[in-house]
Amino acid sequence: MDQTVTPSPDFDQSFRDQFENLLRWRRDIRHFETSPVPADLVQACLSMANLAPSVGLSQPWRFVELQDPTRRAQIIQSFEDCNAQALQAYEGEKRQLYTTLKLEGLRQAPVQFAVFCDDETDKGDGLGKQSMPEMLNYSVVTAIYSFWLAARTHGLGVGWVSILDPQTVKNACNVPDHWSLIAYLCVGWPAIDPTCTPELEQKGWENRQPHPDFYKKL
Amino acid sequence: MDQTVTPSPDFDQSFRDQFENLLRWRRDIRHFETSPVPADLVQACLSMANLAPSVGLSQPWRFVELQDPTRRAQIIQSFEDCNAQALQAYEGEKRQLYTTLKLEGLRQAPVQFAVFCDDETDKGDGLGKQSMPEMLNYSVVTAIYSFWLAARTHGLGVGWVSILDPQTVKNACNVPDHWSLIAYLCVGWPAIDPTCTPELEQKGWENRQPHPDFYKKL
Repeated sequence: MDQTVTPSPDFDQSFRDQFENLLRWRRDIRHFETSPVPADLVQACLSMANLAPSVGLSQPWRFVELQDPTRRAQIIQSFEDCNAQALQAYEGEKRQLYTTLKLEGLRQAPVQFAVFCDDETDKGDGLGKQSMPEMLNYSVVTAIYSFWLAARTHGLGVGWVSILDPQTVKNACNVPDHWSLIAYLCVGWPAIDPTCTPELEQKGWENRQPHPDFYKKL
Repeated sequence: MDQTVTPSPDFDQSFRDQFENLLRWRRDIRHFETSPVPADLVQACLSMANLAPSVGLSQPWRFVELQDPTRRAQIIQSFEDCNAQALQAYEGEKRQLYTTLKLEGLRQAPVQFAVFCDDETDKGDGLGKQSMPEMLNYSVVTAIYSFWLAARTHGLGVGWVSILDPQTVKNACNVPDHWSLIAYLCVGWPAIDPTCTPELEQKGWENRQPHPDFYKKL
């Protein structure tokens, strides 16, 4: 039974305004200082990740912090290979623009995580995922986003690198076959003060759309 | 180019404490009042969803608000079918416990959304998803979680229903084949004041694990 006696918190307009600032000024960071991040700060952000929702209370997130230079070099090589491949999809001006984008901070970020989903966890006993097994993966995404937002409240930058071969990252991390790669995260102090405009928008790759464009009523 | 002149916000400890409260007291709500929710409040939460990160700035989230009783009845029927099927996976005490769980608020929640991912959006021009195409789906998950947290700052409850057949929900919403169902959301005022203990933990289905259990360093 629930033993909690603390009353449910009320959030006021001042908090809501700040929370909107947090979402608006989050950024995917690719420019990092190499200066170290206190370990207890990283742990505090991991504790916040652990408050994320998960299907059936399965908590399938597995954070592997990569410090070993040999393993990190395998990640960089995978990015280089996948990025060269990705470039082939573009032509002309878009191809030129693509080559100018900085899409990761793998050589600078002092803290790096591969984040996996344990697809065979017993925890939660399968509740809520029989008809939509991908719910396990989605639970891990909410943990990553919790980590990301928590980091931002401390001024710490997070970059989500997805231009990687998942199997290469799994091999570099020596994790079981039934763990799926969800994200590779670069974490550190931003080298450039984050703006509220995404870097891809600043560089002319793509623009944000306002919200009515993605909403309809039936 | 970035025209923003507002300085990057600093978040203080008081905000961080409140943000932790927000994550800690979020809940998956299944008990709703039937009283209406102001439309502008729902729109405000959708605006917050639109601030979520997305691969290549693709913003692939598509929110379909379902009000039509016939369509809603199809969702309820799909839940009933999938839930009866899910029950077959359990035996003995666990089966008995499963039957006592309330896993959705489909008959009460005044506002309901099916949330899809447009798997073929041109937006973002494919950047960042060639080696991990599932990144599009993950972007939609961060939008849903943004909506959820924003709703909670207003005291509004959100329940994510995943015991559904995705194809049935797509048919009920009459959306293109290349839209994937990510979530079905029930939204409304909670009928029971939310605690900081998940309902599945209160009912003895599963317990939360502390965070060192999911972390390792290499």
